[in-house]
Order: sequence, then C-alpha cells, then structure tokens
Amino acid sequence: MAELADLSALNMLASWDQMVMMPSEGAPGRAHQLGTLARLAHERATVDEIDGWLADLDGEDLGELDGDVVRIARRDWERARRVPAELAAEMSHAHADGQESWRLARASDDFAAFAPALERNVELAQAYGECLTEGEGGVYEALLNDYDFGLRTEELRRLFAALAQALPPLVEEARAHSPRRDLAVPAAAQQIAVAATLRRLGVDDTSWRVDVSAHPFTAWIGRRDTRVTTRYSDGDVESLLSSLHEYGHALYERQIDPALERTNLGRGTSMSIHESQSKLWENHVARNRAFVEVVSGELDTAGFTVAPAELHAAMVGVEPSLVRVSADPLTYPLHIILRFELELALIDGELAVADLPAAWRDGMRRLLGLEVPSDALGCLQDIHWGAGAFGYFPSYALGCLIAAQLWDALEAEIGSREEDLRRGDVAPIQRWLADRVHRHGRRLDTIPLVERVTGSGLAVEPFLRSMSPLAGR
Amino acid sequence: MAELADLSALNMLASWDQMVMMPSEGAPGRAHQLGTLARLAHERATVDEIDGWLADLDGEDLGELDGDVVRIARRDWERARRVPAELAAEMSHAHADGQESWRLARASDDFAAFAPALERNVELAQAYGECLTEGEGGVYEALLNDYDFGLRTEELRRLFAALAQALPPLVEEARAHSPRRDLAVPAAAQQIAVAATLRRLGVDDTSWRVDVSAHPFTAWIGRRDTRVTTRYSDGDVESLLSSLHEYGHALYERQIDPALERTNLGRGTSMSIHESQSKLWENHVARNRAFVEVVSGELDTAGFTVAPAELHAAMVGVEPSLVRVSADPLTYPLHIILRFELELALIDGELAVADLPAAWRDGMRRLLGLEVPSDALGCLQDIHWGAGAFGYFPSYALGCLIAAQLWDALEAEIGSREEDLRRGDVAPIQRWLADRVHRHGRRLDTIPLVERVTGSGLAVEPFLRSMSPLAGR
Repeated sequence: MAELADLSALNMLASWDQMVMMPSEGAPGRAHQLGTLARLAHERATVDEIDGWLADLDGEDLGELDGDVVRIARRDWERARRVPAELAAEMSHAHADGQESWRLARASDDFAAFAPALERNVELAQAYGECLTEGEGGVYEALLNDYDFGLRTEELRRLFAALAQALPPLVEEARAHSPRRDLAVPAAAQQIAVAATLRRLGVDDTSWRVDVSAHPFTAWIGRRDTRVTTRYSDGDVESLLSSLHEYGHALYERQIDPALERTNLGRGTSMSIHESQSKLWENHVARNRAFVEVVSGELDTAGFTVAPAELHAAMVGVEPSLVRVSADPLTYPLHIILRFELELALIDGELAVADLPAAWRDGMRRLLGLEVPSDALGCLQDIHWGAGAFGYFPSYALGCLIAAQLWDALEAEIGSREEDLRRGDVAPIQRWLADRVHRHGRRLDTIPLVERVTGSGLAVEPFLRSMSPLAGR
Repeated sequence: MAELADLSALNMLASWDQMVMMPSEGAPGRAHQLGTLARLAHERATVDEIDGWLADLDGEDLGELDGDVVRIARRDWERARRVPAELAAEMSHAHADGQESWRLARASDDFAAFAPALERNVELAQAYGECLTEGEGGVYEALLNDYDFGLRTEELRRLFAALAQALPPLVEEARAHSPRRDLAVPAAAQQIAVAATLRRLGVDDTSWRVDVSAHPFTAWIGRRDTRVTTRYSDGDVESLLSSLHEYGHALYERQIDPALERTNLGRGTSMSIHESQSKLWENHVARNRAFVEVVSGELDTAGFTVAPAELHAAMVGVEPSLVRVSADPLTYPLHIILRFELELALIDGELAVADLPAAWRDGMRRLLGLEVPSDALGCLQDIHWGAGAFGYFPSYALGCLIAAQLWDALEAEIGSREEDLRRGDVAPIQRWLADRVHRHGRRLDTIPLVERVTGSGLAVEPFLRSMSPLAGR
C-alpha cells in the first residue's frame, strides 16, 4: 500500500509538471511515462498474492483502523482485478494524449482536431466501465463509482431533477436582485491579493506551491507538498474565488490523519466530498460578505481600491454564462447537469462524439438560454473528457450541495462565522473540518460521511436556502 | 527496456523537481517516492525471466544494433542481479535524505549535521561496491564502473599523477601571464545574456527549460524535454560558463540516435564522456576568444558593456581557489584529484567521515596552496557524496582531458572553428558531435569511443597543450 501511495504521488507530480512546467514537446515522452506508471500501479494493486493476504485476514479481529484498511483493500482489489493491465495502460496513455490534444484544440478552437482523441477515450471508458459493471447500475454508474463509491445514477437523476426544477425561477429572480457586476481587477493586483489571502490561510513556501496553469487544479504530492494553481486575467475576479476553491481541496488532503499516510486510506474519500471542501471555501468563505472585507483589504494593499460591497457583488452576481469555471454560484449546477446528460449519453452510446458540439449548443440553449459562439467556449472548455474522466462532473454539483449541508452543520455547532471571518480568522473552520471530515480519509464513503456529520442524506435544500438571498428571498 | 527508460525518466523528473521546484518539507515524501521508484526499477531490471530471454538469444545472429542491445542488456543484468533489491532501495532513500541533509548543512556551515547522512552513504556504497567487485579492481573500481564501464582505478592513478606533476608549474606561470581578473557582471544582465546565448544554440521554449538551482545540473526527462539549470550571482561570470557546460550535457542526450529511444542504449555512454561534452562547450566554445565576442555582444544588449578581451580574461584568469565549480580551467583538475584521493580513502576505510574536514584542508593546502576557511567552502561544497555518488568525481577531470582530445580531432577534420564561432555559428560543431559521439548512445564505451574518434587512448597532452597559452607558452 505504501508503494501504491508513492506511485500515486509520482503520478500527481508528473501530471502537475505536464500542466505547469513541461515544455510542450515533452508530451509524447510524458504519455509513455504516465502509461508505465499506471501499468506498474495496476500490476502492484492486482498481484495474486493480495488474494492470499486478504484470505489470511478474513475473520481476524483487526481493530477498527486495520479493519478499515483491510475492508477498503479488499474492495479496491476486487475492482482493480477486473481491469486488464493492458487496458489500464492504454487508458493512461490515451488520457495523456487526450489532454495534450485538448490543449492544442482548445487554443485553436478546433473540435475536429480533438475528436479522435475523445473518441478513443470514450471507447476505453466504455470498455473499462463494462469490466466493473455490477447489478442494474450500468456502465455509467460503474465509472461514477470510481470517483464516488456507493453513489447511484438514479440518485443523481433525482437530485439533478430537483435542482433543474428549483433553479430556473431562482435564477430569474436573482438576475434582477443580484445582477452580474463586472469588476476589472488588474491581474497583477489579483496575484498579490491571492498570495496574501492564501498566506492568511496558512499557505507558506515551505510546504506549498502556488503556480499558474491553463485550468486551475491542485496536486497533493505529499502530505507536506501541496501545489495549487490558478490563473489571472485582467478584468475579472476569478482568481480570488478559484484560489480558495483549490485551497479547499488542498486543506482536505493535508488534514487527513497522519497515521493514514502511505496507506490505502490516506486520501480524500471521494470526488464529491473533495468538491464539497473546495466549494465550502469558495461559496461559504470567499463569497462570505464578512470575508470579502479581508480580501478587499488585500486588494487595497495591492493598489486596487474597491468597496467590500462592490467586490461582493462582483463575486455573487447572477447571470447565465458560457464557461463553467467562471459561472456564478447559482447557475453553476446547471452547467453540471448539462455535462452529466451529455457524458451519460456518450457512454451509453446514444450520442456520437461528432454530434457533441451540436448537443452542447442545444443543452446550453435549453438550460441556460444561451447561444454558444465557439467550441472553445463550449464543449472544449473543460479538460476532463480529454483526460478520460467520465462520471466525474456530477461531483461538482454534489460538492455545492454537500458544502451547504456541511456549512449548516458547522454553524449549528460552533456558531455563525461572521465575526471570525471579518477578522480573517479561519482557524475554527479548519479545526472543525479536520475533526468532522478530513481526518477520516477513506474510512467513510460519501453518503455515510454526510449522514454522520449532518444527520441526513444528500439534499438540495441547504444549497437552495444558502442561495436564496441572491434572489432577495 | 522501455519501462526501465520510463522509470529512469520519472526519476530524473522527481530529482529535478526536488532541486528546482519542491517545497522543502516535501523532502521525506520525495525520499519515499524515489526509493519506491528505485526498488521497482531494480526489480524490473533483475526479474528471472531476463535470464531466459538472454539465454534464448545466445548465439543468435541479431545484426549490429540488436546485437549491441543484447550485449549491454546482458552486462546490465549481470551487474544488477548482484545487488539485493533492499540495498538498492535503501541507497535511494539514503541518497534523497543525504541531499536534503547536505542542503541544510551547507546553508548553516555545519558538517556535523551532515556527517550521519554521509556515513550512511559511505557504508551503503561499500556494501554496494562489494556486491560488484570483480578480480583485482577492488570496491572503488566497482563503484567507478557504474559511471564509466571499463575504466581502471590504476589508469586514473596514472593520468592523475601525470596531471599532478605537470599542472603546478603551469599554474605558477599562468598566474603571472593570465592572472585572475574579476568582472562584476550584474546577475540580471547575466540572466538575459545566458538566455540569449542559449537561444543562439537552439534552446527554445518548446523542448527545453532553463531554471535556477543551488547547484547547476541538467535533467533529460525525454528526448524533447531537456532541462538545464544555472545560478546567478552578482559580480562573477560563472553563469556564462556553467550554462554552456550544462548545454553540452543536454545536447549529448538530445542527439542520440532516435532509434535508440526507450532502449537500454538510448542515453550517454558514461559520465566521463558526458563530462567531455560539457567541458567541450565550456572550455573550447564558451572560453574561445572568438565566441566571447558573441557573448559580450549579448551582455551589451542586456545593458552591461564589456570589451571581449576583458570578458575573456575574466573567463580564463588563473588563480587557485576554494570552490570547484567556479575554478579556473587550469586548476580545476586539481580539485578533482583531491576528491579522488579522499573518496578512495573513504571507500577503502582509510579515512573516517569525522576526519574528512581536516583531510580536505590538508589536501587543499598541498594541491592548491590554500587555507579553507569553512566547510561550506570546503568539503560541503559539492552535493555528490550526499547523493551517494562515489567514483563520480574522476569523470570531471577525465571530461577535461577527453574534451581537449575531441576538440583536436574536430578541428583536424573540419578546420579551425574561429571564424564560425565569431559569428556564433555552432552548427558544424553540433553536427560533428552528433555523428562522431552523440548518436552512438551506449553502443561504445568510454575508451573504445575515444580510440575510435581520436585514434588514441586517454591522454593528458591535448589538455595541457590547450591550456599552455594561459601560461604564455
């Protein structure tokens, strides 16, 4: 398990490097390297000996921690064994190729240049999902369960149907009550304010890196080697939000119980819980009126003066828009519902890759009432499918829901955060999250964790309630 | 073999990252990751199946290329099999720890803080060398052969004795005829001139990186992903030399026959040939009077005006000094002779680690006539022993010798380089090196390669001749 943890860390490093540091012509070599890493990890995770070790441990009284280690090891082993090593290696190779192809195609707004790599990724995902399909769940649910074990496609349909019903009227009211307000913050001032804000949250040079990449992401290469990326462009406030988003991912991995390091439990339990952590910091801290005072202070120090209320308005203003990562917090889940529908159709074979751009345009018209002017601002905007990640997008919407559920539980237990956040004091939040969510690592799956912390299952109401002030409700 | 090449590339990446990008607290995790990588590579290189494959190929008519692949595979396999996997992993771990310990100890000039890590590395090197000792060569020669297959410790004694005899009188004359002249080039101007000079040599952003690190080095992560580092300090010209030095290493790996990529032959054949490539660019191009005109032009563009003759004088001025990497080209080999003597004594058990600082001071007094004011400027100045590299230093002096031998052969064949270098045209040099040296990869070992290109074995005379103008001879 320690070796698998190390191989996973090396994969993180090689992927981070590819997105942040690698010269572009290194891509073919990197694809080979990632492929070999994936093949070796798959081999190690599926050697015959593991069967014997697990059998030996069957029925042993292992205590709570070791019991969880063995329970998850058995589950991982049983899933991994179903996937041929060559398929795993092909997938890794196709994911690396697909990312590079996506990067170039997006830059030149050329979907056709990306289509072959995407088709290959769809085929491989179908083959992979078929290896893992169990019961009535189908291929898509099998893919979903790689990111969120125990989640049902049906549960997603239920939650997303509720959102799709509740959101449009809320969006309409919010467009009037909290209209979008542009705020042209210069990139240089953003960069200084982001660095200063992250420093307040504990980001230092000795165990963190903050870099720039085309698509913000976080790499946890070691418990004390965390790397977040963001991007800066003149004339918006995106980096002020996305940097706290990535910080949420990073803090989760850093606050896992050190006793779980280099075991199979020593990482975030699921994508939706991971995303709940990033959304908690983005929606409930960065967009919090009290905390916005701190950030506007940092912008002021950086030479850009803005009233807190004006900055807050720019961070929460509601207006249907084309790009997911810069969407307002209310329309954001509608972007995810679109992707969920499309990837489900791609995997089920009901949508051909060649028809994706048109289907995207139809969906954007239906869900957000927008015309898509280019694929670069349409179906080429996200790296995920190019990286072979199907079944991943739902976690972004679930993250919004779970973040709101957790925030309610947090404030119910330790009181309103308003006064602390006005001073920029996030220590009580960090501690509460460490204790209730982070330290468990993979010991609790998504739904058991949410139930334990909030007392209920996945629900849309806390999210809708947290957003209703935007509509003046 | 392709997998081993990929694992080696990942090792390069993880090591580059550690020196250039990693936050310092990532070190313990990185040591685990490098250890796992080394253990896996060792396992793959020594699986029993290889024995059968090699036996099957025995006596087969394979053609020239495949014949070489199998010949070197057999040699590597036989050496690798002698080393227990756990020892290989321990070494990798100790090397990563040692590098971090060295970094901290050097910064605080605290040899005692480094001693335990160094002792561990010496012990492990002894154990490792004993696994590989053959015939009368002894443990040190076994270590040496990891870097330079076929080289004898006795041959080193012979060459270094000849140098130790010829150099001191030459140094005395050169101190008078070409005295050291400081030239305070601001770091910022160096950085601009280095970037511009490297661009002239073909260094672009699509397949290269140029970064800063404490100790300049080169990482070849892929055939089209080459990363050189340098360091800039106000008041010297080091970066103008060390960047061309690293370029020489980089060009070697980039010009290996693409047909050898991801085979066991697709890398530089030995450390001494590698160093001959860096020294060729450092001593025979960067320090060439004609090429200095190009570099002074780049400095001028960067806002620092200096006459070519003055810049040249600063690059070749002779004065015994404390630090190897900034030594003048004439006293440089004396630094290596010291390290050769000391590491031979450490490995043979004739020198205790605790006595190293004193032995270093004695040696510097004897060979260079200098008092060593601190260990940071003495035995803590190089990373090599901290990284477990014993038997590596000789290649630095051999590189000087071989570079001079190759340069003689090059000019004998394609004529004096003076006119081309004055225009900054290095293409004929690149082509000649590609054809005579680079493309072969590991197909020719050090001595056969030198004999083939120059018509003779290793010799000190071409180097001494190339340096004699410094003494006005």
